[in-house]
Amino acid sequence: MQIVMPVNLTPPVAAELLPVAGVSLGIAEANIKREKRKDLLVMQLSDGARVAGVFTRNRFCAAPVTVAREHLVQPDGIRALLVNTGNANAGTGEQGVQDARTSCAALAGLLGCKPCQILPFSTGVIMEPLPVAKIAAGLPGAVANMRPDNWPAAAEAIMTTDIVAKAVSRQVTIDGVRITITGIAKGSGMIHPNMATMLGYIATDAAIAQPLLQEMVSQAANRSFNCITVDGDTSTNDALMLIATGKSALPETGSADSAAGRALQAAISEVAIFLAQAIVRDGEGATKFITVQVEGGTSEDECRQIGYAIARSPLVKTAFFASDPNLGRILAAIGYAGIDDLDVTALKLYLDEVLVAERGGRAASYREEDGQRVMRQSDITIRVVLDRGKAVATLWTCDFSYDYVKINASYRS
Amino acid sequence: MQIVMPVNLTPPVAAELLPVAGVSLGIAEANIKREKRKDLLVMQLSDGARVAGVFTRNRFCAAPVTVAREHLVQPDGIRALLVNTGNANAGTGEQGVQDARTSCAALAGLLGCKPCQILPFSTGVIMEPLPVAKIAAGLPGAVANMRPDNWPAAAEAIMTTDIVAKAVSRQVTIDGVRITITGIAKGSGMIHPNMATMLGYIATDAAIAQPLLQEMVSQAANRSFNCITVDGDTSTNDALMLIATGKSALPETGSADSAAGRALQAAISEVAIFLAQAIVRDGEGATKFITVQVEGGTSEDECRQIGYAIARSPLVKTAFFASDPNLGRILAAIGYAGIDDLDVTALKLYLDEVLVAERGGRAASYREEDGQRVMRQSDITIRVVLDRGKAVATLWTCDFSYDYVKINASYRS
Repeated sequence: MQIVMPVNLTPPVAAELLPVAGVSLGIAEANIKREKRKDLLVMQLSDGARVAGVFTRNRFCAAPVTVAREHLVQPDGIRALLVNTGNANAGTGEQGVQDARTSCAALAGLLGCKPCQILPFSTGVIMEPLPVAKIAAGLPGAVANMRPDNWPAAAEAIMTTDIVAKAVSRQVTIDGVRITITGIAKGSGMIHPNMATMLGYIATDAAIAQPLLQEMVSQAANRSFNCITVDGDTSTNDALMLIATGKSALPETGSADSAAGRALQAAISEVAIFLAQAIVRDGEGATKFITVQVEGGTSEDECRQIGYAIARSPLVKTAFFASDPNLGRILAAIGYAGIDDLDVTALKLYLDEVLVAERGGRAASYREEDGQRVMRQSDITIRVVLDRGKAVATLWTCDFSYDYVKINASYRS
Repeated sequence: MQIVMPVNLTPPVAAELLPVAGVSLGIAEANIKREKRKDLLVMQLSDGARVAGVFTRNRFCAAPVTVAREHLVQPDGIRALLVNTGNANAGTGEQGVQDARTSCAALAGLLGCKPCQILPFSTGVIMEPLPVAKIAAGLPGAVANMRPDNWPAAAEAIMTTDIVAKAVSRQVTIDGVRITITGIAKGSGMIHPNMATMLGYIATDAAIAQPLLQEMVSQAANRSFNCITVDGDTSTNDALMLIATGKSALPETGSADSAAGRALQAAISEVAIFLAQAIVRDGEGATKFITVQVEGGTSEDECRQIGYAIARSPLVKTAFFASDPNLGRILAAIGYAGIDDLDVTALKLYLDEVLVAERGGRAASYREEDGQRVMRQSDITIRVVLDRGKAVATLWTCDFSYDYVKINASYRS
């Protein structure tokens, strides 16, 4: 298959991915779907580390999602995360849940903890039985090579149709203490909020109280992974996990409104947004990265509704692929977004700084060559100004190319 | 461009398209977007003919939709319909409305009626000014060649990205009187209910009271054009018009519950369903025609919601294009359809007669070769049995191919 490169996204530089004290990562090639491919990741956490997460809202949620939700609320503390690619263990019924439990038990045996202290995650093809024996056989190797600086290999190990690994680190100094936040994510197709077909793991050495940790991961998801779409398909396996090991010298943060709470939230959200945008830049077949900004709505929901109508329209997305300023398709998408009392003569449509439409039609100042110039770029902002309120929403999407069809018509083969 | 043939759809046979007394059709090549192409249609109606219609719910509705809605409610009776392709006159603001009125006035001058007795329709590219002078110049030719047996040419004249013309006739005998119903439609992309990018015109020589005519066209649309999707984009210009000339010997029908009312509704709906399915069979790039039937829901809305999640999923549609029974993607779509209390372990998924999934996972009896056999067909039914109520919905969609992208990335060029 011919490879399309992601849009302005380069692989992470290993030296720039910072270890997080209290997190150790091991990788294995377990031959789950293909041979000679990293497909198993173990993230071991130090004693006392806290974990919170958000999961897919798909009713056909995968077995590992069910099991991870259960394990997160038990009192013993999470000691490790186990991630496999090549098989989603979704649409696998009761057997799938048993298989997820068996995988947790296998890792717990190696690490000397309880099975309920393991969080399982799977990504890959749906409705195929999880090859538990291969996972169990791969685990000793993964455990044997656990290292704190294994983040680059970990980012690779969770990839499926991703072309480049997605990982980033940030540091923030709070009360004189340097806090590290490192995150990895995977996802490329079946990407739509609530959530995307994505797995994301963000770890920090800060100590964060459990309720605040949950609040922080929810807020980070809402500003990042819940603002992207590649194809409008919401997956069965999505999960974003936030780990706080508490290994830094900073005292525990318990309030979102404290200076430390705000600084941590900002840094965590920044990492999440980087990872979410990276998923869109590496969207299946993507050749363009498109920011959709809707302003002046009566509510954020309304802005998101209009933004998503644009961001998931196949006609809009193929026009961007063709660099064709066939911008009436954006107007059509705004019109069918479902805002019944929308006054289309009051809104303005911009492509980057170019005013395209106003008063219900093409702007008098608009010249096709200006639209054409912006359309040729690889990073483009569609801006819709509704002029009916103060709410704003920003979403990210990509274009729709031959390669999306090619990748998804041949995914299993 | 390489041409994909529609799925099991052949062009109408001219001899099988029956004239409808009281309707005369004229065609011209007005060079609106391209030369040497039929792009203008005039349908003249006899005095006393009644017209009712349903229109797009897109807030950015096209100028001709606005004008046609106005003209339909004026008391003077409609004398002609004017349809142009090559330009949608949508996203054209106040000038677009003036242009639609100018076109009506030009035709009214030739036919000797008032401009408000003309219904205008446009389809084609959005946000380009309507070339009114070309339309005015083409009208005398169209009027000069008006004939009752011009339905085949009329079906061709309204095509845009359609590969074959869509037209059908039915006859029904009521109280010993033979009633004729003939319909034409266009549409191929930007197809999603409420309504599709489609124009449809159905005419009968029955006499039908105005309120019943409106009821009949709404019901026919709900069972046909509002049950299809190609790409999830709802257009700015959709319209389905039902014309009753009253030229047959059958007395006026005023009640939906009479024998005549039921017979007429059935025949009109049958014509509408044929035309709607023809649009999907000729969906841009389509290689498969897919019926999505959702049964056992608590409401028809719920069944439609699940059906549309499946029918518009790019992942499902690319799997069908590849003839790949990657049927977990259908489960994922059911799961994200937004039915919060859906019990996924209670539902059954069938591909034609093959039971694919039950109890939340793959059915024990399912064999990949059975799924593969059905997937290779060009007409396929996806059946979801929810087992939670008695409601049913049936939708029609097509697969998603390279050619969809190709057609829509090059539409304007």
